[in-house]
Amino acid sequence: MTTTAHRLVPPLLDPVTATDSATLAAHALDAALGIDAPADFTLVRARDVDDVVETLRWAAAERIPVVPQGARTGLAGGAVPLEGGVALNLEAMRDIEDVDEVEGLACVQAGVITADLKEAAAAVGLHYGPDPASVAISTVGGNVATNAGGLCCLKYGATSDAIRALEVVLPGGEVIRTGHRTAKGVAGFDLTGLFVGSEGCLGVVTRAWARLGPRPDEPATVLATFPTLRSGCDAIVALRRERHRPNLVEIMDGPTVEAIRAYGDYGFPAGVEAALLVQSDRPEHAAQDATRYAEVCASAGATSVTVSGSREESTALMAGRRVISPALDRLGHNLTEDMCVPVRHLAEFIERGYAIGERHGTRIITAGHGGDGNLHPTVYFDPEDPEQVRRAHEAITDLVDAALRLGGTITGEHGVGILKSEWLPRELGAAEIERQRGLKAFFDPLGIMNPGRVLWPPTRP
Amino acid sequence: MTTTAHRLVPPLLDPVTATDSATLAAHALDAALGIDAPADFTLVRARDVDDVVETLRWAAAERIPVVPQGARTGLAGGAVPLEGGVALNLEAMRDIEDVDEVEGLACVQAGVITADLKEAAAAVGLHYGPDPASVAISTVGGNVATNAGGLCCLKYGATSDAIRALEVVLPGGEVIRTGHRTAKGVAGFDLTGLFVGSEGCLGVVTRAWARLGPRPDEPATVLATFPTLRSGCDAIVALRRERHRPNLVEIMDGPTVEAIRAYGDYGFPAGVEAALLVQSDRPEHAAQDATRYAEVCASAGATSVTVSGSREESTALMAGRRVISPALDRLGHNLTEDMCVPVRHLAEFIERGYAIGERHGTRIITAGHGGDGNLHPTVYFDPEDPEQVRRAHEAITDLVDAALRLGGTITGEHGVGILKSEWLPRELGAAEIERQRGLKAFFDPLGIMNPGRVLWPPTRP
Repeated sequence: MTTTAHRLVPPLLDPVTATDSATLAAHALDAALGIDAPADFTLVRARDVDDVVETLRWAAAERIPVVPQGARTGLAGGAVPLEGGVALNLEAMRDIEDVDEVEGLACVQAGVITADLKEAAAAVGLHYGPDPASVAISTVGGNVATNAGGLCCLKYGATSDAIRALEVVLPGGEVIRTGHRTAKGVAGFDLTGLFVGSEGCLGVVTRAWARLGPRPDEPATVLATFPTLRSGCDAIVALRRERHRPNLVEIMDGPTVEAIRAYGDYGFPAGVEAALLVQSDRPEHAAQDATRYAEVCASAGATSVTVSGSREESTALMAGRRVISPALDRLGHNLTEDMCVPVRHLAEFIERGYAIGERHGTRIITAGHGGDGNLHPTVYFDPEDPEQVRRAHEAITDLVDAALRLGGTITGEHGVGILKSEWLPRELGAAEIERQRGLKAFFDPLGIMNPGRVLWPPTRP
Repeated sequence: MTTTAHRLVPPLLDPVTATDSATLAAHALDAALGIDAPADFTLVRARDVDDVVETLRWAAAERIPVVPQGARTGLAGGAVPLEGGVALNLEAMRDIEDVDEVEGLACVQAGVITADLKEAAAAVGLHYGPDPASVAISTVGGNVATNAGGLCCLKYGATSDAIRALEVVLPGGEVIRTGHRTAKGVAGFDLTGLFVGSEGCLGVVTRAWARLGPRPDEPATVLATFPTLRSGCDAIVALRRERHRPNLVEIMDGPTVEAIRAYGDYGFPAGVEAALLVQSDRPEHAAQDATRYAEVCASAGATSVTVSGSREESTALMAGRRVISPALDRLGHNLTEDMCVPVRHLAEFIERGYAIGERHGTRIITAGHGGDGNLHPTVYFDPEDPEQVRRAHEAITDLVDAALRLGGTITGEHGVGILKSEWLPRELGAAEIERQRGLKAFFDPLGIMNPGRVLWPPTRP
């Protein structure tokens, strides 16, 4: 990858335009794999909404494409700068402007780290629900752009469920506010939900008003392992019927458990075909719920069940979950996918993954947020071998089709970005893609707002 | 009001077009006051989505305006047929198509009565949260159109918080699906939130996928009365800080309490300036929470506090709340408004209401859903006296401005419809109104979908 010095920039933005090659290189990609960095782009690091306005005005006048960026933790390529374009980074806009514990509402700039928002909420006895795995490093603006989910969505919802109102700078520089800051409101069309998950294609989110809920207790954790995949998934279905809903139900299939075991001793026994981590954080009842969840798992056929007896034990039980990514990487080069299916179809989807892997001569291992039906199949291939790359691509296409046939979606929380835009028409259909192109053109008539991402090909250069 | 026989109708719809004058009269208005019924309109009672498609195709070909209707319980006039247009009623589409207790998701046709959805959810141990006062008679489609709220939004949210996906028939007859049926999803722009609260101006919602949450317990209720309005509102602020959030906090100001007392004995003492009804429905802890809420009210200065000891006592304490509307009507002709303010500003808004009433020589009494900041000021005037009508109108304008100045909204749950469209630009501003007109034209290029409602004047006839 080469990155050259910055191009033409708006005079007012000179002080916030980075020129050194190391900084440019650090902003030339996000966390998506297999994407080429642009050779030439301008990096603007906005200090405030005025910088964003200035950038978008200038970009419109010069017809230069703009890609909004946060911490570049995205996994679909939606924040990768475009060749000859502007990367508009919002990481410096990290003020937590207000935390109103009476209203249950926080107002934050888009560059605030999600964990900092969670901490600010906790400081007044409240809770910001969304918890993407990247929580310690990703930004609220990035979470909004991809409608980030995470581990606890089955109880607390995804980012879209937590955002009440937004400030957005539209292409051309107009600043708008969407939604309501009060708990209710129906004055005009609410554009908030349209911008959440729009991956920077409609405008630049600069500020968010986030709902804060009651503070949960420290979680109690159950680790249960199963002799068959089906029995593990049956346990998830049974857990979903529990009145006191777990805040977390993670599933690891047999090969994932093997990979964790090979990585270290995290308390997982040998010879299991599925493992679940289940948590309750219900105030005053977390331990009681965990005991109940352990019984549910045992009834579904779990052969080993461990219930945490302390905060330390709970953390220890979760440790295996946290090493999944490095453990899977030890097995070889891979790409982690992100589909959802209805919870009843988890086992079928994972089994189809095995069959798809076999059919295409590529290994597919699946773990994920079983409690909300969001699975991350990991597909192995040698990126240097074009034949293996082709097979992996075909396997992912089959996974996409499998998720859709089961009533699911091609992406639960990573977004479409660059990597999944080819499959989006399979989910939405041609007519809806055209409508969404029209909606994009409504907000972005010049077609300069993250063009070609999500909706590919771009309608304008 | 006169209504004539139906006009030109599409041949396929002849069997579902009503022609008798009593039926037409029953569909010529919604529950909003002071609106003239159209003299001539066509009533189509759709049996299924095909009837909706056929109607919208025909209406587009004939350039005839269409007003979607449910049970006509709306309070802003959004469902009143247009002169010479079609009222497209969906009450006959009342199938509860699926209640999936594992996924926590119900699929219902738009004409399903909200209470029936709640009952179907309860039958599988789950809970549909939104609870507009009209719950027993209003439809899910109508609730979606107005983003209906209700009494328990501070814990369970409004309709927008409960809708995961929609089927919508667009002007011209295209059927689209928005959102995802899985708990997570970020494949393309999500139009769901745009249609919720759009009051039939963008398309006809025919089907909704609604989230179902865990079943609460029977509520325990506290009735607390206060010597001053400020102390009552202080109690609400204190209650909002409680870790275990009440599911209901209703406020009645002094004149409202007097009106209830004049209507009957509902346990309200004399000489109070504010009364609160507070509930907990937390599983296994409702009574414990209610006792705690009673202490909070006492600490804030309540002079009388009653805690229900049984389901019957809880129902009895709520009885006074349920007669507010007839009790206020006994005091004379009135219009009930619907603003929201941040919870901290409740007392200030109610006091401004008194001052505004005095300034314009009209009486203003306020009650409402204090726990979420949604107040319903009732403005008294003689509808036969043009001067009083003018004063009431000026008073409402001042209430609108007061709500906006306090950071609130002009409508929390009733919608804009006909009655509030003149004030919408005060909240949104001219640029946003123009954008919303453009969005409407994007979905409704012929301008025949409930034209002139919400956004007034209509851009096309």
